[in-house]
Amino acid sequence: MVLAGSMAASLRERRPREELAGRRVVTFFSEASTRTRLSFELAARSLGADVSHLDAVSSSVVKGESLMDTVRTVGALGADLLVMRHQRAGAPYLATRHFPGHVVNAGDGCHAHPTQALADLYTLRQRLPRGVQGARVAIVGDIRHSRVARSDVWSLTTAGAEVTLCGPAEWLTGVAEWTAGVGAGRRVSVTTDLVRAITGADAVMALRVQRERLARAGPSLAAYSERYRLTPDRLQLAHPDALVMHPGPVNQGMEIDRAVAWGPRSVILDQVANGVPVRMAIMALLVGPGS
Amino acid sequence: MVLAGSMAASLRERRPREELAGRRVVTFFSEASTRTRLSFELAARSLGADVSHLDAVSSSVVKGESLMDTVRTVGALGADLLVMRHQRAGAPYLATRHFPGHVVNAGDGCHAHPTQALADLYTLRQRLPRGVQGARVAIVGDIRHSRVARSDVWSLTTAGAEVTLCGPAEWLTGVAEWTAGVGAGRRVSVTTDLVRAITGADAVMALRVQRERLARAGPSLAAYSERYRLTPDRLQLAHPDALVMHPGPVNQGMEIDRAVAWGPRSVILDQVANGVPVRMAIMALLVGPGS
Amino acid sequence: MVLAGSMAASLRERRPREELAGRRVVTFFSEASTRTRLSFELAARSLGADVSHLDAVSSSVVKGESLMDTVRTVGALGADLLVMRHQRAGAPYLATRHFPGHVVNAGDGCHAHPTQALADLYTLRQRLPRGVQGARVAIVGDIRHSRVARSDVWSLTTAGAEVTLCGPAEWLTGVAEWTAGVGAGRRVSVTTDLVRAITGADAVMALRVQRERLARAGPSLAAYSERYRLTPDRLQLAHPDALVMHPGPVNQGMEIDRAVAWGPRSVILDQVANGVPVRMAIMALLVGPGS
Repeated sequence: MVLAGSMAASLRERRPREELAGRRVVTFFSEASTRTRLSFELAARSLGADVSHLDAVSSSVVKGESLMDTVRTVGALGADLLVMRHQRAGAPYLATRHFPGHVVNAGDGCHAHPTQALADLYTLRQRLPRGVQGARVAIVGDIRHSRVARSDVWSLTTAGAEVTLCGPAEWLTGVAEWTAGVGAGRRVSVTTDLVRAITGADAVMALRVQRERLARAGPSLAAYSERYRLTPDRLQLAHPDALVMHPGPVNQGMEIDRAVAWGPRSVILDQVANGVPVRMAIMALLVGPGS
Repeated sequence: MVLAGSMAASLRERRPREELAGRRVVTFFSEASTRTRLSFELAARSLGADVSHLDAVSSSVVKGESLMDTVRTVGALGADLLVMRHQRAGAPYLATRHFPGHVVNAGDGCHAHPTQALADLYTLRQRLPRGVQGARVAIVGDIRHSRVARSDVWSLTTAGAEVTLCGPAEWLTGVAEWTAGVGAGRRVSVTTDLVRAITGADAVMALRVQRERLARAGPSLAAYSERYRLTPDRLQLAHPDALVMHPGPVNQGMEIDRAVAWGPRSVILDQVANGVPVRMAIMALLVGPGS
Repeated sequence: MVLAGSMAASLRERRPREELAGRRVVTFFSEASTRTRLSFELAARSLGADVSHLDAVSSSVVKGESLMDTVRTVGALGADLLVMRHQRAGAPYLATRHFPGHVVNAGDGCHAHPTQALADLYTLRQRLPRGVQGARVAIVGDIRHSRVARSDVWSLTTAGAEVTLCGPAEWLTGVAEWTAGVGAGRRVSVTTDLVRAITGADAVMALRVQRERLARAGPSLAAYSERYRLTPDRLQLAHPDALVMHPGPVNQGMEIDRAVAWGPRSVILDQVANGVPVRMAIMALLVGPGS
């Protein structure tokens, strides 16, 4: 976090850094992404790295090559760092066995999105007037399929926040089990009651309704939006200076009203902006000098 | 134009420039493009910028994010300049309200393509033996749907040329109205008569038949090609040293014969080549030192 | 090969080179590729070049522009080197007539893949304990449609190796004719007998079964795999320290067993890794200082 702050200062002052000079970063994304891929690309270049992109559509995966052979190939070509997003949970972890350098998980299936969780934590540290320790954060939506929610539970509770996960029952299946594993001393609760989740919260995060995963069982979109959408009225229940968060991309009018998403309490663009220095810090720690 | 000339000299001498050093340019294209995207990319890098590309297919627009949220996100990520092509007229203008830096229109629907128009003007200044002032330029094709024609009318008449827009009646609908708005002292005429348009012209520009827009009403392709294709015979009607132009990409044998497109009077590749220094000049004026 | 060795040393020591500083390389690929495109991209950047990518899907080829007009356009935009892959044999050769700079063939249809063949030769020089001169190399698979096999025959026999091409009869049609043209003093033989091809070989290369080309007549995949797959047992027939090669991407279990592809004799990742310095050497010779 201290290093990320130093990275943010360099970006503000347009001061180039050299931590990754001469290093090769390959971003390998098998799912659509605007912000995450661009964020890593800009972060790596701001550290002097050479960045190449590989997407699953144009890669040899379409010729029948296994995913891990592609990973080995990228390693053999001399890449130092592989930034990987994949629709299957665990793919970046498996990749670490086949890639000679470091692998950064840029989101794997419904499992984890650790760099987003660090950007979210950085944003809360920066913007919560009373700090993250003891803060109450509500995360609302399809918790079951959200890699962001899973990673945020880890990052936020580690920093001392209390997290409430909220959504319709079908989207909370299995959630009690993994939150039970989060560990002693960490405070996570699960509820279907939006009022209970939001009331008095210091920050409320709406998750994107992932239409592309909705072939699976779940509530109708209309019913979800009616009961759980973050509206100006509902936001009144939270602490008067509560922050509004969203990992993006936003479906306006579905999980959050436009007036809330882009209103005065929103830190959604801060989450985006902070992703760059946070990813710079992660990459510098992994492959920079002294790593 | 003077600055573009200086840029062209730098390119010829392979002299790197620094106007955009440390600046981030994002090209965001929602339509297929070879020359325009590459032209901006090469131009920005020749000024020392860091260039990232975003295409609509891989971007979060497919996840349901609104176009303007994508624009805000790119701004939050720290981009200084957004180069935008979009199939909807006006999209880049709307983007200026949501993007903290500068936006360059790289072609919006049927509305405008200003950097192409400046490259065309630059080409005419360079190649017309008697200058642009008072020159007669004929533009032939689907005027109604041509953003190039609209922008060329502005750039060429501003420089003192007289422009004749020519095509079948269905492709001239509404054209009289917007040419009437071009302003006093500017000379624009509209005709369905190819002979009248070409006779004595100093430059003749054939527009690409945009098959992708032809679901709409219009003449059959065969009938258009028969009546309006730029052939060696028809080119005889123009001034003996008339220039042949085309904004590209060329459909050979459809709107122009191969012998004309790549013949001795063609400046089509000059239009392409001049796009780079012209776009360098535009970007340096917008975000370079002293801007 | 000496220059490639020097390039490899620079890569190992992370020493940037400047042979292509200020030069513009455009990679134009009309077929899916991981390793070749990335390999050229990393190679060119390691020499200080500016690299842009154009793929057929996003390029103006979809708007009806002819391939060669795209090539001219890329030239007019100022590219110094065009790296081209195309599904039609001969396309990069035709491109040399329309592109003002140099063109490198990155694979054209079933015709040639010369940079791969040089990487393969480099790998054999590096890894064959008794050298390439007089070495026996077996290449197994769909010879008829393999641009790699064709180019390898040239590179390997030029260096003094003896090459045996092996596969089912349907995949050897016409092969006798072109090997006859390889020239006096070069040793190439053709056989359908896998045992004969492998026995005593110093290196065995399995070719990828190109499912995307298999609409054409040929053996069933199951029958091919049963009779020609490189298995641990079959590899026993080769010289005790024989090398295992594959131009990638590998279809494990189809043309080669996993245990062979990634076993101790495999130099498949060496072939990938060596592609970078070999391509650096080629590009430096074409457009570097003194070229």
